[in-house]
Amino acid sequence: MKSSFYGVIMAGGRGTRFWPLSTREMPKQFLRLTGCKTMLQETASRFEGFCDHTRIMVVTGIDHRETVLEQLPCMDQKNLLLEPSGRNTAACIGWAARTLFNRGEGSAIMAVVPSDHVVDNPEGFRETLSIAAGPAMDGMLVTVGIPPDHPSTGYGYLEQGEKIGKDIYRVSAFREKPDPDTAKEYVSSNRFFWNAGMFIWRADVILNEISQHLPELAEGLEKLDSDTEPDLSLYDSLPSISIDYGVMEKAGNVVMVPAKFGWNDIGDWPTARKCDVGRGEVISVDSENTTVWNEGKLTVLMGLKNISVVETDSVTLVMSDEYSQKLKDVVAKLEKERPDLV
Amino acid sequence: MKSSFYGVIMAGGRGTRFWPLSTREMPKQFLRLTGCKTMLQETASRFEGFCDHTRIMVVTGIDHRETVLEQLPCMDQKNLLLEPSGRNTAACIGWAARTLFNRGEGSAIMAVVPSDHVVDNPEGFRETLSIAAGPAMDGMLVTVGIPPDHPSTGYGYLEQGEKIGKDIYRVSAFREKPDPDTAKEYVSSNRFFWNAGMFIWRADVILNEISQHLPELAEGLEKLDSDTEPDLSLYDSLPSISIDYGVMEKAGNVVMVPAKFGWNDIGDWPTARKCDVGRGEVISVDSENTTVWNEGKLTVLMGLKNISVVETDSVTLVMSDEYSQKLKDVVAKLEKERPDLV
Repeated sequence: MKSSFYGVIMAGGRGTRFWPLSTREMPKQFLRLTGCKTMLQETASRFEGFCDHTRIMVVTGIDHRETVLEQLPCMDQKNLLLEPSGRNTAACIGWAARTLFNRGEGSAIMAVVPSDHVVDNPEGFRETLSIAAGPAMDGMLVTVGIPPDHPSTGYGYLEQGEKIGKDIYRVSAFREKPDPDTAKEYVSSNRFFWNAGMFIWRADVILNEISQHLPELAEGLEKLDSDTEPDLSLYDSLPSISIDYGVMEKAGNVVMVPAKFGWNDIGDWPTARKCDVGRGEVISVDSENTTVWNEGKLTVLMGLKNISVVETDSVTLVMSDEYSQKLKDVVAKLEKERPDLV
Repeated sequence: MKSSFYGVIMAGGRGTRFWPLSTREMPKQFLRLTGCKTMLQETASRFEGFCDHTRIMVVTGIDHRETVLEQLPCMDQKNLLLEPSGRNTAACIGWAARTLFNRGEGSAIMAVVPSDHVVDNPEGFRETLSIAAGPAMDGMLVTVGIPPDHPSTGYGYLEQGEKIGKDIYRVSAFREKPDPDTAKEYVSSNRFFWNAGMFIWRADVILNEISQHLPELAEGLEKLDSDTEPDLSLYDSLPSISIDYGVMEKAGNVVMVPAKFGWNDIGDWPTARKCDVGRGEVISVDSENTTVWNEGKLTVLMGLKNISVVETDSVTLVMSDEYSQKLKDVVAKLEKERPDLV
């Protein structure tokens, strides 16, 4: 049996920690952060050589239909799955798998990736997917492990187990975001990898796992008809749980392929600094470790360290790095008071 | 002989330390920093009750003719003296005095004030001028001394000498900007006052002092015809020196009247903080001691202390307080590279 290959791009989410640039109307994944392509376009083009552009599947919010079609004009519209509400990754991935299954493509290999991560080496990305495709065809759930370059407390970790092939290991444990000391131990042991939320598996295999570990989700997915725009009431009743927590941590057939590419989730403004995110003219006097985003103005920084200055037409954010995780609280507050700004 | 009273407003200068809001085209004194009036308008209206609006005299750069007339539509145009170049305060004041003298108003009392200072109590300002007018009529050079509220190293100090009347003292010495320890001594002695650059004297008296101490300036002023728009070559050849250094420190008949008003020169962005300068909507999270200026946007500050964020259409400045004196270096650099922005 020859499997077909699908690149499944999860393009939901608000990118709240990238506010004010990222807004409800135009979240992070649709923005040109690092160059002339949007993050979604970068993500899609990364699959060239792995799958045909007609086999790019995008799951996004219903409001973003036009944006996705504008940014990926060559994609097959039947592969654009429009969520009436966000129900976390298990529902998103399960629905994509179910859609392929319903089309008689249950044996298709799905490479599931977030739409808003930076990969510095597309060749290495495809090589990683090629390696992962082997165990995936054999019925394994394959995750991509990112070799950590610092003891981050912001990611979950995959613990490397038994080697079962060249560059393929069992995952002996999923570890939640660690405290700083634990993170240091992880990194110095060389046996822990960041969980980047990239998965490769067969559609029928993940559906089977969902049936076992999330039966309520499996039932809900069966009730969705094959339409790419399901009823809000049906979709909204799906359990909201992450694929990691709902399936991966419980399944027995999980393996990991270490990433052969540099990776950054540019999860917030300070992280983005490492990816050359930043636009516009800047004059910097005695300042270091800064992120600046402006749109056609001059930003002058004097005597500043560890700071982000992000400017849109309606908002200017000036934020000390250690507050980047609290940005979502500001957005939540504005959601009520100034919905026009978020 | 009954003297007439003139309010002479020195409105030259670039306000470089208030960049990017203050620009060559629209310097600080013409901006609405503290309310609905511009600083020039505030300064002029402060003279109400001291002199008639037809006796407001403004000395400014030739480029600002229209701006002044727009902001002070009731002033007498013949009292608008337009400098073809900036030649410091001795030339500016000397020219104003000479103009009055040429009109047969040598005995007029001139109250000379900068156009860009904040006075919190106009009644107290006029009371101070009334006190000062006495010794001024008697031929003294009267300065206003500001009781210091902290040991500033940013101002020159007047040392209080012999008391010669109610609220009138001889000035026993002019002191340059002190180092921090000296400033503390000055303030704790209660005998030192800030030199705010406000003077009250008769036109003929200051002209006589200029003849004695700055004969070259006196000669130059005689050559200017009575026109309010002198030739560049004539004006530009006047010696460029401050009235403090050129006359006050050398003259023998100098007295001081302590200010009966709160004063702030809002010399830079951090100082401006004390005067409620700042416009636009601000959300402040764990931030203190900040100055924000924006024009119709939202500025969000997170985790910041002792910082100014100043935004115009073309520039955003984010500056740590201790860099406020270095702002002029940035402006000087831009003067060459991006003259459109300064």
